[in-house]
Amino acid sequence: MNLLLLKDNDFIAPGRVKISDRRFLQLRDIIKLENGKTFRAGMTGGNIGSATVAEFTGEYAVMDVAPFTLPPPEPAKITLVCALPRPQTFHKVLHCAITMGVKKIWFIHSRKVEKSYWQSSVLQDEAVDREIQLALEQCGDTIYPEIFYRNRFKPFAEDEFPLLRADADAAIFGHPRASEVPENFTGKRLVLLVGPEGGFSDYEVELFSNAGATAVTLGQRVLRTEFATAALLAKLI
Amino acid sequence: MNLLLLKDNDFIAPGRVKISDRRFLQLRDIIKLENGKTFRAGMTGGNIGSATVAEFTGEYAVMDVAPFTLPPPEPAKITLVCALPRPQTFHKVLHCAITMGVKKIWFIHSRKVEKSYWQSSVLQDEAVDREIQLALEQCGDTIYPEIFYRNRFKPFAEDEFPLLRADADAAIFGHPRASEVPENFTGKRLVLLVGPEGGFSDYEVELFSNAGATAVTLGQRVLRTEFATAALLAKLI
Repeated sequence: MNLLLLKDNDFIAPGRVKISDRRFLQLRDIIKLENGKTFRAGMTGGNIGSATVAEFTGEYAVMDVAPFTLPPPEPAKITLVCALPRPQTFHKVLHCAITMGVKKIWFIHSRKVEKSYWQSSVLQDEAVDREIQLALEQCGDTIYPEIFYRNRFKPFAEDEFPLLRADADAAIFGHPRASEVPENFTGKRLVLLVGPEGGFSDYEVELFSNAGATAVTLGQRVLRTEFATAALLAKLI
Repeated sequence: MNLLLLKDNDFIAPGRVKISDRRFLQLRDIIKLENGKTFRAGMTGGNIGSATVAEFTGEYAVMDVAPFTLPPPEPAKITLVCALPRPQTFHKVLHCAITMGVKKIWFIHSRKVEKSYWQSSVLQDEAVDREIQLALEQCGDTIYPEIFYRNRFKPFAEDEFPLLRADADAAIFGHPRASEVPENFTGKRLVLLVGPEGGFSDYEVELFSNAGATAVTLGQRVLRTEFATAALLAKLI
């Protein structure tokens, strides 16, 4: 936890918060509480500052917060569109994208995505919300990403993707037999498409290409989805 | 598994292998075996080609292999020096580095590395060997990395790091208050230092800086070690 992420209902008085949930346990057990100790803190959706321990027990901590004045880090100008990863990978990709500053994340169906993935409990709101909080606390950000789920490929690719593409400077997708990531994409407003294990099908590639997406490669090696996402984002941000 | 990684003792006759271990289970349960089905395969430490299923049962598969003629992918020209991550992160970092083509990986002590990490079972040869195989199978490579462990910081930093530095075009380390990764480092022979959660101490930073390492940043956000490694490698390869 590199930032204590606060919500309105943590406040018990103006400038004073009381926490007793997962965040408290992490402060108590890992970061260690001491009276007067100061932590980096931020308001969900707002600014960043610090919180100072006023009192604590084994069950809760009360902290004083000065008005938060620092803005959160700049968001990445990248919309991530990712074929829904297998359940054990989904939170890793989500975490990676959020900690790298992505604020718009689409999970879509694709031919090589197993239908059962859409039923997984990892997609439930509560599990996703928890991962978002962990990721924001990790990277020191306060702004929630927007997450969209589309379990039908065609309507997404034909109707929604062209709108995302039109709103960006470029759209790119990873493909083993493409050229390297062009340097002049760095820092642009981009849509990044990340395929499933095994890649987008030829039909899917054609659809995205026709809608104005460019194929790029990270080289010959096939990376796990979470590392491919990290590597492509790093090349583009 | 994107490549079936074979060893000498898999051969039961010239051009014929029999496998019944973890690799077999993966082919049987995930990739699905069929007579005549062909898989990408490679010799550990050697070339890449294909293997064709000749017969299989629920217990083993026999496959015919033509002589392997394709060389493995080019190694990355980067030596990774990573403060030993916590046990649950160690294999992720190892996997990431291997799949991104790093062939020399040093795990070193650093002030913010807990001493207990050095006793973890994840460092045992067998566990490491398994992760190396999984990573090579994932990325489609056959060349084992060399892995070095140094559980004392000072002798490494003072005696060994300068030699690594002298052997490379540049050495860099991640630091929150530095400039962005210079573009002209891409593709060079590099030493990449990745700090522990919480970063290298001021003393450690000074030692590496004095020995010719340059501080770079990935931005304001603090990434998990495995994603910081992926992102820095992607910027540099």
